[in-house]
Amino acid sequence: MKKEIRIGLFGFGCVGQGLYDVLNESRGIRAEIRKIAVKHADKPRKLPAHFFTTDADEILDDPEINLIVELINDPDAAFDIVSRALRSGKDVVSANKKMIAEHLPELYELQKQYGTSLLYEASSCGSIPIIRTLEEYYDNELLFGVSGIFNGSSNYILTKVYQEGSTYEAALRQAQELGFAETDPTLDVGGFDPLYKLCIITAHSYGTFIKPEEVFNFGIQSLAAQDIRYAKEKGCKIKLVCTVRKLNGSCFTLFVMPQLVRSDDPLFLVDRENNGVVVEAAFSDKQFFQGKGAGGHPTGSAVLSDISASTYEYRYEYKKIAQNEGLEYTRDVNLEVYVSYEREEDLEGLEFVEVLERYQGRQSHYVIGTVTLASLYRHKEDLRTRNIFIALNQPKVTLAETQPAEANAVAVS
Amino acid sequence: MKKEIRIGLFGFGCVGQGLYDVLNESRGIRAEIRKIAVKHADKPRKLPAHFFTTDADEILDDPEINLIVELINDPDAAFDIVSRALRSGKDVVSANKKMIAEHLPELYELQKQYGTSLLYEASSCGSIPIIRTLEEYYDNELLFGVSGIFNGSSNYILTKVYQEGSTYEAALRQAQELGFAETDPTLDVGGFDPLYKLCIITAHSYGTFIKPEEVFNFGIQSLAAQDIRYAKEKGCKIKLVCTVRKLNGSCFTLFVMPQLVRSDDPLFLVDRENNGVVVEAAFSDKQFFQGKGAGGHPTGSAVLSDISASTYEYRYEYKKIAQNEGLEYTRDVNLEVYVSYEREEDLEGLEFVEVLERYQGRQSHYVIGTVTLASLYRHKEDLRTRNIFIALNQPKVTLAETQPAEANAVAVS
Repeated sequence: MKKEIRIGLFGFGCVGQGLYDVLNESRGIRAEIRKIAVKHADKPRKLPAHFFTTDADEILDDPEINLIVELINDPDAAFDIVSRALRSGKDVVSANKKMIAEHLPELYELQKQYGTSLLYEASSCGSIPIIRTLEEYYDNELLFGVSGIFNGSSNYILTKVYQEGSTYEAALRQAQELGFAETDPTLDVGGFDPLYKLCIITAHSYGTFIKPEEVFNFGIQSLAAQDIRYAKEKGCKIKLVCTVRKLNGSCFTLFVMPQLVRSDDPLFLVDRENNGVVVEAAFSDKQFFQGKGAGGHPTGSAVLSDISASTYEYRYEYKKIAQNEGLEYTRDVNLEVYVSYEREEDLEGLEFVEVLERYQGRQSHYVIGTVTLASLYRHKEDLRTRNIFIALNQPKVTLAETQPAEANAVAVS
Repeated sequence: MKKEIRIGLFGFGCVGQGLYDVLNESRGIRAEIRKIAVKHADKPRKLPAHFFTTDADEILDDPEINLIVELINDPDAAFDIVSRALRSGKDVVSANKKMIAEHLPELYELQKQYGTSLLYEASSCGSIPIIRTLEEYYDNELLFGVSGIFNGSSNYILTKVYQEGSTYEAALRQAQELGFAETDPTLDVGGFDPLYKLCIITAHSYGTFIKPEEVFNFGIQSLAAQDIRYAKEKGCKIKLVCTVRKLNGSCFTLFVMPQLVRSDDPLFLVDRENNGVVVEAAFSDKQFFQGKGAGGHPTGSAVLSDISASTYEYRYEYKKIAQNEGLEYTRDVNLEVYVSYEREEDLEGLEFVEVLERYQGRQSHYVIGTVTLASLYRHKEDLRTRNIFIALNQPKVTLAETQPAEANAVAVS
């Protein structure tokens, strides 16, 4: 029943090396690393030289190798390797969230066309088995939404800054030293890394491929002392939260932004480099999953579980795509947000549907009100350059009633 | 790809009725309830009479019906129905933890022999997809242990008594009124219901079938005011916790008992009717799952997900059984326990390896010390009749070093 797996590995960084060790130790998984493609041939490494090659073809053309494990940084090179492998009849395991989020429609078609399988549990939420759980456990009919903390690095920083009084810069440096942060910190703290994960999770939640650039994401870089003070006064924590939520039988929405998380929300307790996911469904009510979300080991664990699944010829069935009956992505929803700012001009263009509170102090200013996601999205590039911090004040998301929903439905691929 | 499911349902209580409603509403699942077997034909019901029968054979002999959903209370009758169905080529979904825990070896063999499938996610931890996660995500090589709150009813009572100051009796009555408690409360508060779940989870964790009667279980019935006071002083909560834990490469142990849970344990926050499960593994570190653990809807949700899986011909592969290389169940482990008692005689026979603390006050007495699980197990019937409360004081479990492990390995089926 179990297939013998002969792996061609791309990339031998921290995850790749840990994976090699644990595969050697494991009796449970019949998988062996045959060859490892690396960029630089002459770095000193702990394995004999015959394991390594700088020539991708040596792996992709090897008929003995039946599984490609792709663990490199560069998303374009990764897409090239993964799509070539799928075309040549090799199954693939990948942890590359950016590559997968951007190319999921093509990768889905390639799998169908060539009968090969691509698994990517390691791409989303570290060690939490969220993709497989969504694939196999929740029927899309009953799934109200998924929300969560999908980025360990920014959550680590928020924990340090908010709970332990570190400065933002010191916390970022620590996260980088611990190996939690991506090479470019903007990916984490700007909310791009969690955005890629949210797009992947949305495909497995509602069977629709959403391009990352179609989604509003806002990060934590502009978090200031006054925001921390405000949150503490209200008994909240500030978390960078991803949300995808069904609004009714015909549409859903998604976004990534900081949120004032209250103490009765399971995400309130997700601290440091942990990730947390809340899945809401009709019958099962709220499910909560928590696990390590950053670092080589949790990623390695998810890669390993995908390799293990490969030995049983497991593949994603993308059931929600088959079940999807025209569920559409809309940004015509109202969000209640907290916006702190320095000068009145910084609020320009932010189209408040309703202003609920306004505070103008000597050192700080904020406004709480309802805005549409569509207007936030329209100004997203601009908002990032201003001296303002935006956070969801209430997790509630409602359809904007001013405009007909279908007129503003977003075209999706 | 999707199989059309025609269901024969046994039992039409709260879960069965909810299931009927949601199946009718769902477009995602191609499953239809054809016939429902009930005990009493003439109860007034919300469905037309032609749906019902009191004759099991009418369902089991119907060649059109290809899935049996078993939701009755009586474990013996349930085993008869389920084993007959599996033999006659019908797949089965069941939520009957006692029946499954007691008959898993036979049910495993029946599935192998007749090529039929039995799914039972609903039997364990309500809506948390723990069996499927263990089946598909964790390789036994890397799994250190699983612990959790597996009984919503007793957790509801503990929350009411401990946090809200209810009396034990009032809290039990409330749990029963809310439909959280089993018909016989001893099953819940005596730690039998969680014991059955732990046995099922152990099979999917370590590939070994353990009979419930081979396991030490102790409940919360003897919880007294002094225990609550003690826990509060130490900043702990008292939870009824199930534990299965690998001790080294050759043995593991399991037990059910109250535990003094500290605030850094994810189980600390699992309150009311929720269940929580912590899975510890080498690479993924600590994973935590939380969801509703009692009531008709969470169980219905798990039943529904199994029916949905059936449409894709999903079956448990029992991978851990194939992978198990002689891992043995042992009770020769040391546990650090807190024992409160009224009279010295009540401690008789409790063989303390080491006494760490002893308190003799005017109104209360307790001792904290190390005992072997083997000695607790030997006296388990007797301990239940005494006026003592036992709780694990530290989650640490170590091999008892006084005796050679193999001499005391427990025979398992």
